Amino acid sequence: MDAILDQLRAIVGPSGLLTDAADTAPFATDWRHLYEGRTPAVVRPASTNQLAAVMRLCNDHGIAVVPQGGNTSMVAGATPDANNAQLVVSTARMNHVRAIDPVDLTMTIEAGVTLKAAQMAALEADCLLPLSISSEGSAQIGGVLATNAGGNNTLRYGNARDLVLGLEVVLPDGQVWNGLRSLRKDNTGYCLRQLFVGSEGTLGIISAGVLKLAPKPREYAVALCAVPTADAALAVFARFQSHDPGQVQAFEYMSGMGMQFVLRHIPGATQPLAAPAAHYCLVELASPRRDAGLRASLETVLEAALGDGAVEDAVIAESEAQRAALWKLREEHAEAQKREGASVKNDVSVPVSRVPEMIRRATEACEALIPGIRAVPFGHMGDGNIHFNLEQPTDWDAERFLAQDHAIMDTVNDVVRDLGGSFSAEHGVGRLKPYMMADWRGGAELDLMRRIKHAIDPRGIMNPGKVLP
Amino acid sequence: MDAILDQLRAIVGPSGLLTDAADTAPFATDWRHLYEGRTPAVVRPASTNQLAAVMRLCNDHGIAVVPQGGNTSMVAGATPDANNAQLVVSTARMNHVRAIDPVDLTMTIEAGVTLKAAQMAALEADCLLPLSISSEGSAQIGGVLATNAGGNNTLRYGNARDLVLGLEVVLPDGQVWNGLRSLRKDNTGYCLRQLFVGSEGTLGIISAGVLKLAPKPREYAVALCAVPTADAALAVFARFQSHDPGQVQAFEYMSGMGMQFVLRHIPGATQPLAAPAAHYCLVELASPRRDAGLRASLETVLEAALGDGAVEDAVIAESEAQRAALWKLREEHAEAQKREGASVKNDVSVPVSRVPEMIRRATEACEALIPGIRAVPFGHMGDGNIHFNLEQPTDWDAERFLAQDHAIMDTVNDVVRDLGGSFSAEHGVGRLKPYMMADWRGGAELDLMRRIKHAIDPRGIMNPGKVLP
Repeated sequence: MDAILDQLRAIVGPSGLLTDAADTAPFATDWRHLYEGRTPAVVRPASTNQLAAVMRLCNDHGIAVVPQGGNTSMVAGATPDANNAQLVVSTARMNHVRAIDPVDLTMTIEAGVTLKAAQMAALEADCLLPLSISSEGSAQIGGVLATNAGGNNTLRYGNARDLVLGLEVVLPDGQVWNGLRSLRKDNTGYCLRQLFVGSEGTLGIISAGVLKLAPKPREYAVALCAVPTADAALAVFARFQSHDPGQVQAFEYMSGMGMQFVLRHIPGATQPLAAPAAHYCLVELASPRRDAGLRASLETVLEAALGDGAVEDAVIAESEAQRAALWKLREEHAEAQKREGASVKNDVSVPVSRVPEMIRRATEACEALIPGIRAVPFGHMGDGNIHFNLEQPTDWDAERFLAQDHAIMDTVNDVVRDLGGSFSAEHGVGRLKPYMMADWRGGAELDLMRRIKHAIDPRGIMNPGKVLP
Repeated sequence: MDAILDQLRAIVGPSGLLTDAADTAPFATDWRHLYEGRTPAVVRPASTNQLAAVMRLCNDHGIAVVPQGGNTSMVAGATPDANNAQLVVSTARMNHVRAIDPVDLTMTIEAGVTLKAAQMAALEADCLLPLSISSEGSAQIGGVLATNAGGNNTLRYGNARDLVLGLEVVLPDGQVWNGLRSLRKDNTGYCLRQLFVGSEGTLGIISAGVLKLAPKPREYAVALCAVPTADAALAVFARFQSHDPGQVQAFEYMSGMGMQFVLRHIPGATQPLAAPAAHYCLVELASPRRDAGLRASLETVLEAALGDGAVEDAVIAESEAQRAALWKLREEHAEAQKREGASVKNDVSVPVSRVPEMIRRATEACEALIPGIRAVPFGHMGDGNIHFNLEQPTDWDAERFLAQDHAIMDTVNDVVRDLGGSFSAEHGVGRLKPYMMADWRGGAELDLMRRIKHAIDPRGIMNPGKVLP
């Protein structure tokens, strides 16, 4: 390995190779601290050519490579195992925005740019990079694409997959596929880019991408609604969609329980409605023009929903500060749950129409499993994607509760599966969930995935132990 | 082969197998009559199970299979070669709409349903299947997905690829992958559906799909603009996009020459503007609500464009009949060119911002190649996709002109390539264009495609001679 490290150092330069344990440790442990890993080195190429040379060397010697961006994986997808044999390849130094075109509405950008920096670069060109996730300050474009990140605005603009027009990928054998095309239509052979998007670094390393941009919104209208049931929340969503789907930027669901936690634990969070409700939904409309009539749309739809009882009460933000305050109630859900106690997280999806049934059945099933457990479902109802978190009973200690994590996850997943859903909507499979793959995606599907993996990475050096069981 | 035919007949029933030359001939020749093929039989399974049994049998015996839907390929992608050894497998009898959900805005549909029938089924549920192509009366969903069809509304809703949430595919070995999920978010392994979409039947046969729907538009606003240059047309497009991209349903470009042909040859076509122009653009806004202010948007943007000279003159449709009349000027372009004489067709794309330069340079290059040639570029400017057709000089005969087809295509493609474009935007590769693949998509890209092909279809029975050189 020492000889390999010398060769790597020759490729990336002394500052491109970290080998001291103190330097490599942060790259070896995942963000959630689920696993503690070890690596002989973190390789930090500064260019696609350097990255290609690194991959050639590793492939020739059968050395396993773990690609890493901002190391914000929720499923330990970007860190090495504990055997001190897997190299971490960090894309952080490949961090240039290569081009932005406001007419094409595209951005060509390297893997190591953080999502936040990419958003800012787009805004400077009066455009919107319509992808926003809570880890955006650290998450890098390469990882965002490799994991097909989602977020609040997927409803309107799609997830990472929907925003990718082109990719540059360094293959396991060091070949570079330059597919950085900025074309809206191109039917010339297999759609390779969508194979790498969401492959979580198991097929190659994304070194750059061409992303779609949107015109920057200039007007927003946001409302928080108290609704009697999750079904009512869905009915409100359907009303907004049939009114004008081109205006709906986000549609989020929150439970009464989750809102209670936020109001209890988050400084400055205040109940904007007259009384607590059993369920809430938050809707945001947006338009790039200032006279789009968003406020009128909100009022029209909410009036009808108040009329038929789907909405019990609603508040419309009257200022940018009020808009931020309403969003804060949603965005602080994870933090409030942490302060309330231990929780078990599920990132699940079902067809949009089944979300209320999923919430009801999974809540009942978890309460039957552990009396006193507190279900805190919240998230992207408009995408069918609910973060179905479970908070410990008040009279249990955290350790006892967390020992039940697999039983709880299985209980939620049984309902999700029965409704045609997925055990991972946004977060991916990583190292945490490959054991579910045989059961959920087995037969012809997993067989296809394995054949593709073997065809593209025959030596199996790319991110071993991730995604595929 | 006789024994094989008996076994096929046992699987699909007597009415499911056509072997008489008179019956099979229409399936053996492509729609454009570019190639005359021969086949020992057309197999017409009525279910996924039958299709799977057919594929198992063919794979066991190494018999080549050509999947066929409506046989409307522009690149001879769905017909057998002349050796009378490739079976045609028609999906026409698998023609059920399995489900439509207006809340999920999804439709689960079998391969053999025509696009037109699928659109009608969606409309009955008060939804829009937002995919429309000129062959929609014959084209079947399976082929539409296998070729990643595009059309006029790609700008707003994306092409077939963007509308697919799930697929059911019968693999070359007869395994069935049931990936008919209706999920907006699902990050559980490789995105297999996008590998089959656009693979033109070379990796398996799509037997069913889950497609996204949209709320049905209830209000339209359409304008035809006379513009001095293609650059001006692009400037008008950029104005509409930055005004409100959620309203823009289509943005089409037409040349003055193409419009002359339409007015000359198409009965009932009339010039709606005061004077002929050098270039035209057609913009359509649409909304599912009736008070979306589309007319006001049209007027606001056009007024600004008239003010700065980008638009010289414009007419707004005042009725549904006028809207149809304006669209007719665009839609009759292919027919008018046919009546004017022989033409050579190119379906090319470039980044949207480069469309004017592409039109200018390709026109000049073709005029230099053949003095008197008449360039008739038209199509989906908003997607960067131009049908760059070339009409014969008036003093040439058709045969002499068509003998130059490769020289003309190469001339256009040289410009397209220089601008980062594609030689096939919508129509695919089929049998007509695999020879271009090595040059345009060679190196790592073609290598990846071949590795995937071999991994999924190791015996090479799926649609041989198509896509890959």
